[in-house]
Amino acid sequence: MEFTAKTISEFLRGTIVGNPDEKVSEISKIEEGKKGSLSFLSNPKYTKYLYTTDASIVLVNKDLTLEDKVKATLILVDNAYEAFASLLQLYTQSLPKKLGIDKEVYISSTCKYGKDIYIGAFTYIGENVKIGNNVSLYPQVYVGDNVTIGDNTIIYPGVKIYHDCIIGSGCTIHGSTVIGSDGFGFAPQQDNEYKKIPQIGNVIIEDSVEIGSNVSIDRATIGSTIIRKGVKIDNLIQVAHNVEIGANTVIAAQSGISGSTKIGKDVMIAGQVGIVGHIRIADGVKIGAQSGVTNSIDKEGEIILGSPAYNISEKRREFAVARQLPNIYKKITDLEKEVQRLKDGEKKS
Amino acid sequence: MEFTAKTISEFLRGTIVGNPDEKVSEISKIEEGKKGSLSFLSNPKYTKYLYTTDASIVLVNKDLTLEDKVKATLILVDNAYEAFASLLQLYTQSLPKKLGIDKEVYISSTCKYGKDIYIGAFTYIGENVKIGNNVSLYPQVYVGDNVTIGDNTIIYPGVKIYHDCIIGSGCTIHGSTVIGSDGFGFAPQQDNEYKKIPQIGNVIIEDSVEIGSNVSIDRATIGSTIIRKGVKIDNLIQVAHNVEIGANTVIAAQSGISGSTKIGKDVMIAGQVGIVGHIRIADGVKIGAQSGVTNSIDKEGEIILGSPAYNISEKRREFAVARQLPNIYKKITDLEKEVQRLKDGEKKS
Amino acid sequence: MEFTAKTISEFLRGTIVGNPDEKVSEISKIEEGKKGSLSFLSNPKYTKYLYTTDASIVLVNKDLTLEDKVKATLILVDNAYEAFASLLQLYTQSLPKKLGIDKEVYISSTCKYGKDIYIGAFTYIGENVKIGNNVSLYPQVYVGDNVTIGDNTIIYPGVKIYHDCIIGSGCTIHGSTVIGSDGFGFAPQQDNEYKKIPQIGNVIIEDSVEIGSNVSIDRATIGSTIIRKGVKIDNLIQVAHNVEIGANTVIAAQSGISGSTKIGKDVMIAGQVGIVGHIRIADGVKIGAQSGVTNSIDKEGEIILGSPAYNISEKRREFAVARQLPNIYKKITDLEKEVQRLKDGEKKS
Repeated sequence: MEFTAKTISEFLRGTIVGNPDEKVSEISKIEEGKKGSLSFLSNPKYTKYLYTTDASIVLVNKDLTLEDKVKATLILVDNAYEAFASLLQLYTQSLPKKLGIDKEVYISSTCKYGKDIYIGAFTYIGENVKIGNNVSLYPQVYVGDNVTIGDNTIIYPGVKIYHDCIIGSGCTIHGSTVIGSDGFGFAPQQDNEYKKIPQIGNVIIEDSVEIGSNVSIDRATIGSTIIRKGVKIDNLIQVAHNVEIGANTVIAAQSGISGSTKIGKDVMIAGQVGIVGHIRIADGVKIGAQSGVTNSIDKEGEIILGSPAYNISEKRREFAVARQLPNIYKKITDLEKEVQRLKDGEKKS
Repeated sequence: MEFTAKTISEFLRGTIVGNPDEKVSEISKIEEGKKGSLSFLSNPKYTKYLYTTDASIVLVNKDLTLEDKVKATLILVDNAYEAFASLLQLYTQSLPKKLGIDKEVYISSTCKYGKDIYIGAFTYIGENVKIGNNVSLYPQVYVGDNVTIGDNTIIYPGVKIYHDCIIGSGCTIHGSTVIGSDGFGFAPQQDNEYKKIPQIGNVIIEDSVEIGSNVSIDRATIGSTIIRKGVKIDNLIQVAHNVEIGANTVIAAQSGISGSTKIGKDVMIAGQVGIVGHIRIADGVKIGAQSGVTNSIDKEGEIILGSPAYNISEKRREFAVARQLPNIYKKITDLEKEVQRLKDGEKKS
Repeated sequence: MEFTAKTISEFLRGTIVGNPDEKVSEISKIEEGKKGSLSFLSNPKYTKYLYTTDASIVLVNKDLTLEDKVKATLILVDNAYEAFASLLQLYTQSLPKKLGIDKEVYISSTCKYGKDIYIGAFTYIGENVKIGNNVSLYPQVYVGDNVTIGDNTIIYPGVKIYHDCIIGSGCTIHGSTVIGSDGFGFAPQQDNEYKKIPQIGNVIIEDSVEIGSNVSIDRATIGSTIIRKGVKIDNLIQVAHNVEIGANTVIAAQSGISGSTKIGKDVMIAGQVGIVGHIRIADGVKIGAQSGVTNSIDKEGEIILGSPAYNISEKRREFAVARQLPNIYKKITDLEKEVQRLKDGEKKS
């Protein structure tokens, strides 16, 4: 499909600077723009490419000040990144969508499902499962007994959802992720062996949650492990039993949250963070990459870093001095010598 | 199902304080207790809820001293946590269990299996596989050629067990876990390319081992990667080729053990720990979260922490002083000034 | 099969010391050698076993100086490790290989595939997929629409390859790995919710790449996430959207690379390393285990360590002094007392 600058600008309610009849048929990064492609400029680090790109059309923030000639036709919008995201969404919605039920599936006779659904080959759906409208279950998905899946949710290939779990509407779950595996609960015995604590709870995932690939979210021992509305979880993340993650919290790849910890809403957790069990993280807290959080964070909006983690400004000062440690050690040795010399002088006098 | 305090107390050999006819039909956390639910109190952090819970029955340690009125009927037992675990076990055993072989499976003609087994749809079983009695293979499991699986073992959906691996009795393996993938072995060549070292060994998992979801356990180059009896492995854990893990060792989520390292028995490894290759960890060692273990730990029962990891008391003192580093730096600068002043005074005099 | 020392030595162009008619039928580690087995000695840590092993034949480097009597027949070669790898390769090539297409598969009518291929049961192949010659797709693999897979590539059970991705020739991908899941891209909204940025790019994996189990490689937002020729990726690794990894780079288990970062060629990344987004790592850089890389590394061949990571020699000196911190603190307190005493003496005088 081909679009003109005029069509795109009208859709985005933008302003054209250049040729309204300029045509594009594909999307590119600004540094890889070519004739017939549409790009955008949002990150200031990439501004230099605006003056050299071969893209035919570029979306830019309307407050951008041009410092040189630009070959491309520009469309000025309030927020170029969001405008671009809207175009991407429009584009993906225009792609053909799989519908219907492949014949190589296992669907229990007690399963109920809505309309406009896609169930791919080799997907298994257990007893008493309820699936909403417009749901996509890609091939090789496992849906255990008594699971509920809300409208408009997309479950990618190989996802495993254990019995009794609840998945909301408008969710996306990526390949090989496991929802509802047993929590890691064992009672030590006198002979050093461990006795398994059965995990009879479930996992509740509210609406508009996105979960990456190869994620593990364990079911609660009793009650529920809960992922609130709008949470975004990246790949390879561990969520232990009875954890609760507040609305619109974002967690980057390879982080882990131990059992029974409660994370507030609007929290940002960077990659490879570890959080111990049975603590609370206040709303709006930000946790830097590779942090190890060992205590509750009570102050809303606090920014922490390090292992052990504390206030990021304090930690950064510590990091800066730590890098000077060999130098500091020398200073101390010098001081010891000087002081000894002074003491020796004192004795002599 | 409904149970009375009397029935439960008799099963647990406990003592009732309250109404022996009190009835419960479900299980809840003490802080979420409601009429008709059974709870337990073990962690002292939760004692306050005993006086406010709406649970009808609460299991408590018999040595608990009450400090206020309690509405619930209490059942006094030696260890409330273990008693509760026993009830959970009873409860889960009462749940219906899947049996039989779904018709959408691939089972080689040379596979031998015992009685009372469950093989879910889309599970693949290769040549010469031997499966014991009372084994559950959930849907979409892969069992490679020549694999052996012992009695009473449960393999959850999507687990992949490569050829020649041996799984013991009474094991549990959770979704998407991979047992027996190739070890990471490559010989560097003169042109900077790498030549693969074929991995012709296997993985041996002894009895009563539990393995979480999305775990990777690589096969040995030659010989076996060995997980001894009673080991408990959480989610997203890496076990490299030729590793050996001793009996009843417990490993929390996202930890990784590099090639050929031997872990003793009764070791406790917290989350996100990394252990280098070709070392030994003595029996009973405890390793704190996010530690990086770079050398063998020879002393049994040693507790280590940090990256690089050493004795936890030493490390904690180091952490405490590290937090004072900006302050320490100021002290040194002050000392330097003072000493300079003293030296200047000395010269003058 | 049984081989004589003579046959093996001729294949390896080695020199026999001992009995040319000595026979072996299996392969063992040198410390577990037994009559009829072949071992090798490469790592000097294992030299002691040469004098005690029961292996019938041992491959050794031709420059090895014997310090005691050896029972085994030796075959002297230039490089015992590589010679052993060649034998392992010969051995694995002699194993029976699965060929043909199981009947329980889903293959779209528009898929094209070459000769000598294996497609295992419950594997799904979407529209317009192109598969080369001599490719193995184990059971339960997912191959999305428009995917291309080159000759001689092996895809192990449960791998999920999303639409539009390109896999080269001679690649190996292990179980449960996901190629092409959505990058983690969300635009924050004013109400603290996030709007998904559709990820319309793909993943390109060039020739001779090996990827372990439970790995996540996300598709690009636009353009491609690229893994160059000869790269080796261990288990449980995160590769975010728009990352590019240069030729023959090696990455150990549980490491993660954030979005848009470009890694050079011949880079070595140890286990559990985290690398932030939008940076560049020069060719030949080596990154120590558990490092956190927060800035571009511009110097080729630089070796870095730590979190935050910098030059390994500098970091190691810092680690050494850090361990002395409690001692350093005492030195400073002592100095403060001494200086105070000197000042007091000064006043008195």
